[in-house]
Amino acid sequence: MSDTQTDRRYLQSALALAQRATIETSPNPRVGCVLVKAGQVIGEGWTQPVGQAHAEVQALHDAAARGHDTEGATAYVTLEPCSHYGRTPPCANALVQARVARVVAAIGDANPQVAGNGIRILQEAGIQTECDLYPDIAQAAREMNLGFFQRMESGRPWVRIKIAASLDGKTALPNGQSQWITGLEARRDGHHWRARADAILTGIGTVLADDPQLNVRDVETPRQPLKIVLDSQLQIPVNARLFDSGRSLIVCAVDHQEKRKLLEAKGVEVLCMPDISGQIDLQKLLQELGRRQINEMHVEAGATLDGALLRAGLADELLLYLAPRLLGMGAGLVSIPELTHVDQATQLVFHSVTPLGADMRILARFI
Amino acid sequence: MSDTQTDRRYLQSALALAQRATIETSPNPRVGCVLVKAGQVIGEGWTQPVGQAHAEVQALHDAAARGHDTEGATAYVTLEPCSHYGRTPPCANALVQARVARVVAAIGDANPQVAGNGIRILQEAGIQTECDLYPDIAQAAREMNLGFFQRMESGRPWVRIKIAASLDGKTALPNGQSQWITGLEARRDGHHWRARADAILTGIGTVLADDPQLNVRDVETPRQPLKIVLDSQLQIPVNARLFDSGRSLIVCAVDHQEKRKLLEAKGVEVLCMPDISGQIDLQKLLQELGRRQINEMHVEAGATLDGALLRAGLADELLLYLAPRLLGMGAGLVSIPELTHVDQATQLVFHSVTPLGADMRILARFI
Repeated sequence: MSDTQTDRRYLQSALALAQRATIETSPNPRVGCVLVKAGQVIGEGWTQPVGQAHAEVQALHDAAARGHDTEGATAYVTLEPCSHYGRTPPCANALVQARVARVVAAIGDANPQVAGNGIRILQEAGIQTECDLYPDIAQAAREMNLGFFQRMESGRPWVRIKIAASLDGKTALPNGQSQWITGLEARRDGHHWRARADAILTGIGTVLADDPQLNVRDVETPRQPLKIVLDSQLQIPVNARLFDSGRSLIVCAVDHQEKRKLLEAKGVEVLCMPDISGQIDLQKLLQELGRRQINEMHVEAGATLDGALLRAGLADELLLYLAPRLLGMGAGLVSIPELTHVDQATQLVFHSVTPLGADMRILARFI
Repeated sequence: MSDTQTDRRYLQSALALAQRATIETSPNPRVGCVLVKAGQVIGEGWTQPVGQAHAEVQALHDAAARGHDTEGATAYVTLEPCSHYGRTPPCANALVQARVARVVAAIGDANPQVAGNGIRILQEAGIQTECDLYPDIAQAAREMNLGFFQRMESGRPWVRIKIAASLDGKTALPNGQSQWITGLEARRDGHHWRARADAILTGIGTVLADDPQLNVRDVETPRQPLKIVLDSQLQIPVNARLFDSGRSLIVCAVDHQEKRKLLEAKGVEVLCMPDISGQIDLQKLLQELGRRQINEMHVEAGATLDGALLRAGLADELLLYLAPRLLGMGAGLVSIPELTHVDQATQLVFHSVTPLGADMRILARFI
């Protein structure tokens, strides 16, 4: 096997380890690390829950626990080792101290506090480094941390819009009925996507119509995503079901002090964020959520809010569950202004199609 | 290899041969035949263009041309050998004359003129017969001739509704624009489905709006499907583009003698088929098309006609091309009356999903 093949193989192993990093790592990226010495894997690690060891440190611990000396080893990591003191000391320093000879990273870190610095620290210590050598592996490493990369690069979370619809693009009947267009498997799958998100966003229309709990069910998770409701006029009932558990953030455009105090008394945060036209400033809100280290935001809203995010250029991904049925009349997928030419359509690219029970899950990205 | 495995393998070979039977065989089913003697394939055949040899006869010719004696051979066929004198003599008789020892058929023929008779002729001649032994292979044999089986079992063609839409289920913009929602690959693929159909159906609305040619392009074919237009009031312009080539059948519900004569003078057939409410009698029309040996009918119409076929229980399959774009407002997939409960929806089952360029082809069946 050539050196290239060897490197690719161990990077793939590191990617597989990164998959084990649970949803608990957020806002840290999911990273995997394999330590190899004399053709033998001597240590493996992946990001631990936030505040605990990163992948590299975990792998060094693993090597030590197995009785191996890491001097002269090669570290394969799915992301450039971090270089800054956050909740834990920098991984780059840990690798230097462990006297590894070589570090192969799948992709450079987009975090401006790291970007290139991790590699530089290693190089200055005389460690041979390679980074971003294989486009396919770099892409896989990025995919694993779409939200983290989006936040580092644009300051806002990765926005995934979830919609369940019939094959003819209806999300509800004219009388408002929308339960259950898709089947059990699709609904369960939806909870997996909720679970990996740091926040779940909806609009006041959905709250008033369906009174959703907006939490993760059917999936074991150590943390519940932040619940966010866009509610321009602060109409949300203080006894809305979503307040029954977890943390909630209500975003409004008009401050109603009395209602705000009622909500705050329940432990609910209220954020007033109007734009110049008196609507909620979506751009500003998304930047604020980025500042709060929300990597992935899961949107389960109606056509109006979905359309608003889309028109604001704030939608990254469409998670569409299509049921094999035709409803004919009813609510559509998204509200966008009337087009006069097909070329004006909002373009996406299909990313994956997966059967789920009788339904189909389509993942598509906005381009 | 067990006998069962051997039989299955040769039936699979026969199915592969049946795939070579071109669209020219219609109204005859696509059939494949493999002749095996002493563990050796001595002859292969598949249905030839209509009026020429069926698969079994073709395989017997092949064996003779290769210098093999067919006495004592086993014939593997994808469909029960025919027993009636049609355009050609019965295949069952040919197999008897060829003194084969055994016939293994994937599935029994649904043609009431054959159903069981082919097998009976063989058995009476002392030939060992097996039929319908493997459900998966029988299913594959049926799939290959969906239209033929539908016509034999219900008297009407297999009805496939083709629709090209955006991901949010729009087939046209509010201003009527519908070209081109899907890309080149999807449009080319559409012509393959037109080519395998015996007839292409549309409604007068589509003719007046788009003036389609309604023929097979981009695909080499020795025959063009019959063009059928549902035109209750006989509004079709005598210079409609679809009259420029091939055969056309206009179906109306009100007889306008003068217009009818104009059309007939152009070689166009006009059929007046009103139901008691003065609409075109779809059930009667479909039976008539079955009588004319239309196996597969390809529908490219608007939401009104598609919805009418669906409500009449005359839609078998949905061939849906989905483009990864959102149009927001515009024409929907099918017109069906307003539902009050999701359970009233028209149900389908997904059959296959295939990427085509940037688009996706979904094949679903009505249940």
